[in-house]
This record gives sequence, structure tokens and C-alpha cells, in this order.
Amino acid sequence: MPLDPQLRDKIIASVDEGFGEQIAFTQALIRFPSTRGAEHTVQDFVFRALSDRGYAMDRFDMDRAAIESHPGGSPWSNEHSTAPIVVGIHRPREEKGRSLILQAHVDVVPTGPMEMWSHAPFDPVIEGDWLYGRGGADMKVGHAANIFAMDALRRIGLQPAATVYIQSVVEEESTGNGALMTHLRGYKADAVLIPEPEDEKLVRANVGVIWFQVEVRGHPVHVREMGAGANAIDAAYRVIGELRRLESDWNERKKGRPNFENEAHPINLNVGKIEGGDWASSVPCWCRLDCRIAVYPGIPAEEAAREIRERIAAFAQSDAYFANNPPQVTFNGFHTEGYELTPGSDAEAVLAAAHQSATGSPLESFMTAGYLDARVYALYDKVPALCYGPISENIHGFDERANIPSIKRITTAMALFIAEWSGVETA
Amino acid sequence: MPLDPQLRDKIIASVDEGFGEQIAFTQALIRFPSTRGAEHTVQDFVFRALSDRGYAMDRFDMDRAAIESHPGGSPWSNEHSTAPIVVGIHRPREEKGRSLILQAHVDVVPTGPMEMWSHAPFDPVIEGDWLYGRGGADMKVGHAANIFAMDALRRIGLQPAATVYIQSVVEEESTGNGALMTHLRGYKADAVLIPEPEDEKLVRANVGVIWFQVEVRGHPVHVREMGAGANAIDAAYRVIGELRRLESDWNERKKGRPNFENEAHPINLNVGKIEGGDWASSVPCWCRLDCRIAVYPGIPAEEAAREIRERIAAFAQSDAYFANNPPQVTFNGFHTEGYELTPGSDAEAVLAAAHQSATGSPLESFMTAGYLDARVYALYDKVPALCYGPISENIHGFDERANIPSIKRITTAMALFIAEWSGVETA
Repeated sequence: MPLDPQLRDKIIASVDEGFGEQIAFTQALIRFPSTRGAEHTVQDFVFRALSDRGYAMDRFDMDRAAIESHPGGSPWSNEHSTAPIVVGIHRPREEKGRSLILQAHVDVVPTGPMEMWSHAPFDPVIEGDWLYGRGGADMKVGHAANIFAMDALRRIGLQPAATVYIQSVVEEESTGNGALMTHLRGYKADAVLIPEPEDEKLVRANVGVIWFQVEVRGHPVHVREMGAGANAIDAAYRVIGELRRLESDWNERKKGRPNFENEAHPINLNVGKIEGGDWASSVPCWCRLDCRIAVYPGIPAEEAAREIRERIAAFAQSDAYFANNPPQVTFNGFHTEGYELTPGSDAEAVLAAAHQSATGSPLESFMTAGYLDARVYALYDKVPALCYGPISENIHGFDERANIPSIKRITTAMALFIAEWSGVETA
Repeated sequence: MPLDPQLRDKIIASVDEGFGEQIAFTQALIRFPSTRGAEHTVQDFVFRALSDRGYAMDRFDMDRAAIESHPGGSPWSNEHSTAPIVVGIHRPREEKGRSLILQAHVDVVPTGPMEMWSHAPFDPVIEGDWLYGRGGADMKVGHAANIFAMDALRRIGLQPAATVYIQSVVEEESTGNGALMTHLRGYKADAVLIPEPEDEKLVRANVGVIWFQVEVRGHPVHVREMGAGANAIDAAYRVIGELRRLESDWNERKKGRPNFENEAHPINLNVGKIEGGDWASSVPCWCRLDCRIAVYPGIPAEEAAREIRERIAAFAQSDAYFANNPPQVTFNGFHTEGYELTPGSDAEAVLAAAHQSATGSPLESFMTAGYLDARVYALYDKVPALCYGPISENIHGFDERANIPSIKRITTAMALFIAEWSGVETA
């Protein structure tokens, strides 16, 4: 049932009224340099912000054993965050509407070299229509939009007529274990909305992601006798060559996959980090690669991991150096399956109407070739998981930025979506 | 004038008599983990050992300005050692013979991963004929041999009839600035002997060595948009490819160089260290390579450096990625010219006779494709610089070890050499 036009206009005006405060709150979030493992203080800030608004609060740690025994759990490493998960819970006076999870993550990716930024990465500078900062677009902007879409209803004396969970998670950029932990804690709703920076589009499909580390070892010698020693950096490069062939094979398999076959290169292998050797004058005896590769939805992470392991093992047997020193493969992060959003759900229809009202344009959907926490809700709760958010540039890059007019349109669409999906009651 | 056979036999017996103490002293040296910058305590140990023997002592710091303005000086970096140079000086009662420098370095190369060693690297274990330890063969064994060859004369009531300087230097493995500093301090003698592990042979020629760092920068993006971003690790491997072509060109130039043209591969490029990127899920925006390349003797370091710089610059212009992000080349260590030992010197003849007496075999000479401190004395003092030392295995590698019977033969040859070169007087 479409929203009453008068209510619709009141919600649009209310989002506008709170928007200055929303941007200031977003800037406060960006000021926390919440890279992996360093999200404790921003989670405490979120806890206070939700608690101050009167939400019932739940804060909990990850349960490593439960996560690692779940098929959607990613392996632990020394870098795994120990920050808590924070959930603010709205309960209606009467449970009449459909329940909802609004989710966002507070962890942000590394800045890279500071001197490549125009502004300091955690200084939330506004220039024209753009709000800068590492982890702003991805996704503290969306995090604030979750809270302020709800605030927009309260400002006009309303609240959702169903339970709404506002989830603030970590580990979205490295394992997806934060979102999985909310599922393991028992959270479930009739739909989920995650306002990742998706250029005002709805994610129709994404990919699973696998992280793995390859370690190469070899016997060093004095450089004067280099021919006799194995150079681990050169050897690592041969492994990269084999991984590129694997990537190419996986891209070939796009045929017959409707959300992927028209993409030029849906599967990306990223060799994201390399470290090897001790100094210039010794033949390097070790080299480590940190890699990330995408997996089509429907392929369990374990199946993809097995193929990676077997592929490297087979390559090692064909290489004179590796035959005696097989590279070691460790899975040390993302170990996740992708999802596809089945068209035709009520949740999608409600979001499409809200989007049309907020932006004047029809809602488009697309495939995004990266990991999304929405997979937890889609795969394990089997509910519509809507990943939809503002226009951005340079996420994971330098001068990451979010488009401010787009933030307002998205927040408006979200507030309208909540009101129609869950219904409203007087606050 | 050949040594009197009776004196020769007394010296041989005296080396043998002191050999147990010599090995114990060598083991004490190996226990100091004197990697680059960490040579302070071993130099103090050497200072006390020489001082206790009654040598006049000189201890001095490097003079950075003087070194950097000398054509044989290598550039400073943050890793440059600040340990002092130590010299023990023997002055005869009457200066009748030819003066001599006995030189050795105490700095050792990195251990690499500990678990690849059979014994802890700084535990000087003896097994059968072998003395193990990082920096034992290269060259604490030779360092002790300098001191104990002199001790062998004293033990029979003799001392050199000329000035002998026992120099203990640092930075041999990274810049050669320690040896250069002794030259800048004014040390000079009629010949130099450096007992590096040379398999009981005399070095006829060596190479200059250049260290350089190449830094690649590029703009990172989210992996889902990888095609749009430049991967610095991939780009770094393209630079390695160009450097391998440079190495190949330089090897071609061996033609017409008598000490090199029969070597299969006299010029080695070593990419010894690589670091790049921040984590698996961001396209890497930086990558650094630490490289070492050899240079034929007669080519000034500055000329070789210019060719490296120009070669990388030209390659950058031909590469779509580098055209806008040229790699930065920094010279951060060895910046040295090689030397050749002119055959026919008296010093070589005296060493050949001593070697024959100690080993029963004629002295062979050879080209070694690594840096040697002997270049300072050969190039800038223009005196015979004899690099000659014991049999070893795995220098710069795991389980570095020196052959104990060879240490005794070499020490014997050195003591005989000193006695004949400088003559002897009663102590």
C-alpha cells in the first residue's frame, strides 16, 4: 500500500530538516580512524548515539568457535578485530508491520601513503557537493543515514510499527564475520537494508570473496653465486602468473550466468600486498603474497579455496624450484559465498517506490564485483537483502568522497522505505 | 728473501699451538649478533682484545661529509651504522721491513627466517670440521686470523719489523664506507691483506657494486573497479623485467675483459627485497624494490648509476602506467667501483710462497663477483690488496660455515706472509 502523499511529503521535509545534523554526525564518525582492529572507540560512540535516542541496546563480542564452524565464517588471523558488535533495537508499541534490519559497518580500509591524499584521510572536509574522508562513503555516510532515516520519522512524531534493528558491525572489509555474528546472535527480520555506496542503485548480485596468503621459501646464497640459489621474489612472480591464469579461467566461466556474462571481467584477482627478502645484497629466501579473488554466487567458499590450493600445488610440481619447496597457501580472511537478490520481492517493490519518490527516477539494479555483508542475510536468513546507497568516488582509494545531495536523496528514500515497509505508529 | 726454514717451522708450530685459543676467540666474535648498525659491542670487544695485547689503539667515527664527497663513498641511509672503526697499531722498535694493513669487518648480513637454520645463527656450533654461524666465515674467522697470525709471532718471541695496522671495520656488507674511512683517516701501508672466505685462493679481480631502491606509485581503487586502477605490484614486476634486460646487456659487455669473459654470468642483479601494498583487498598503490647490481672494474659507480637511472626513465616513458608516474630511483648503499690485482707484485709473490709452505699447493687466483673492501686500498692507495682466506659454505645463506682445517692453513700462511713481508725482530 503506497504511502499517503501527505505523510510522504512530511517525511521528505523532515529528512531535509535534520540533514545538517546528519552531516555533522557523519563527520564525527569519519574522524575515528577505525581501520581493522581500531573500531573500539567508534563503536562506543555509536553505542552512546543509539542509547541516547532510547533504543534498547545489545553489545557483544564475536564468538570465534561459532563463526569458524559456520559455512559462512571466515578464518581468524592475528589481525582479526576484537571490537564489539553494537545493535540498537526499536520495538513498536504494537507489532503490526514488517520487521527490518538496518545495517552498516564502521571498519574502514587502510589509508595508504598519507602524502597521496589532498586532505588528511580522517579529516572530513566538505568541498562543494562532496564529503571527503577514508571510510566516509564506505560507509559511515550510510551508517549515519540508517540512524537519521529513523530520526526523520521521530521528528514528525512517528516510529516504525515493527521491530527495527540498527546494527553497527566490524570486519566487513576483511572477513564478513561481524555481519555473520549478528546472525549467530539470533537477529533476523523480514528484510535488510544496507546503505553501501552503490551509486543510488540496488545490488542485484555480488560475488563471494576469498583471501589467501601464499608464502614462498627458498635457500639464499651470496649474490656472487646467485645461479645456485633460488630467488623467492622471482618465484613469487611465477606464482602470480599461475594465479592470473586461474583468474582468466574463472572469468571464462561467466558464460551462462545472467548477472555476469555481460561483464568484461567479473572476477578480479588482486595481489594486494607483497613482502619478501631482507636486504639488497642477499638473494631473497622468502616472499609472501596477500591475495583476494572473487567467486561467483552459488560457489561455496570451500570449493573455491580447494581449487586455489590444488591449482598452486599442481603448478608447484611443474616448476623446478617449487617441486622441492612447495608454496604454502593460508586462508586468512574472507571465505565467503556471493548472493543474488531474487527479483520480485515486496521489499524491492517498496524500495523502488521510495527511490522514485526521493529521486524522481526509477530504481536500477546492477551486479557489483565486491564482497557485501548482505550475503549473510540473503544466504543464511533467506530474506530480501537490499544493498542500496549513495553516489561516491574513490572508495578504497585516495580522496574517497561521497556526494552530499545523493546522501540526502538516499536518506529520504530510506525513511520512506521504512515508513512503508514497517508502517508507522505515533511515537 | 725466503724465510729461514727453521723460522718457518717454528711459526707453523706456533700457529698450531695457539689454534685452540684462536677458535674460542672466533666463537666469541660469532656470538655477537653484529648485523648492520648493531656492531657497537663487538667493536668494543675487539678494542679490548687488541688493547690487552699492547697495541696502540685508535677508535673513530665515520665522517659522513668526507665520505660522501669522496668518489669511493657510498650514500648514507637511515640504516647506516654508527658503530666506530677500531685500529690496533703495532710499531716495531726499528722500521726495517715493509708495512702492512691486516683488515677485517665485523658486520654480518641478516639471518633470514630463524627456522631455516639448523642451529641458532649466532651460536658458534662446531660439527666435525666445520664452525657454524652467521658472519663466522664472512668474516669473523678471518678477523680472528689477523690477530692470531700476529700472536703466533709473539708466542715465539718475535714481532714484525715494520708497522702493522690491524683494522676492524663495519659497513662492508652495505656501503664499504668503513674501509674508506680508514683511508680518509690517513691509514696507508705497503700492502693489505684481507682474509675474506675465498676458498684458499687469491682474488685477482672483483666487481663494483651498486645498491638502489626503486619506488613505484599508482592510484588505488576498490578491487571491484580494478581495471581503472594501476597495480603497483604488477608495475614493479615490469620494472624488474627491464632491470633483467639491463643485467643481460651488462653481461654481454664481458667481451674483451680478461677476468670476466670466461664467466657465464659475471654481472648479477639481485632484487633482494620487495615491499608493496597495504592489504589483500585494496589495489596496491605503492611498491618498493631493493636491488643490488655488479659493475665491471674500471667503471666508476657514478657512471653505472647514471645508466641505471636513464634506463628506468626511458622504460617509464614507454609504459602507459609509468608515463604519468615515473618510478623513483634512490641510491641508498654500495656505490663502489671494482678493482683488479695486477699480477707480479712482490706482495703476491710473498703470499704465494707462504701459501705453498702452509698448504703444499700453489696459490691460485680467481675473479669473485661480489664487493670487497680491498677496492679501497687498490683504487685509492694504489697498493697491492690481497684478498685471501679460508674455505667456507653458505655465506649469506643458512648454516653459513667455515672449514676449520682450512682456517688453520690460512692462519699459518698469513703468519708466514707477515714474517717475510715485514721481516721480524725480537719482541
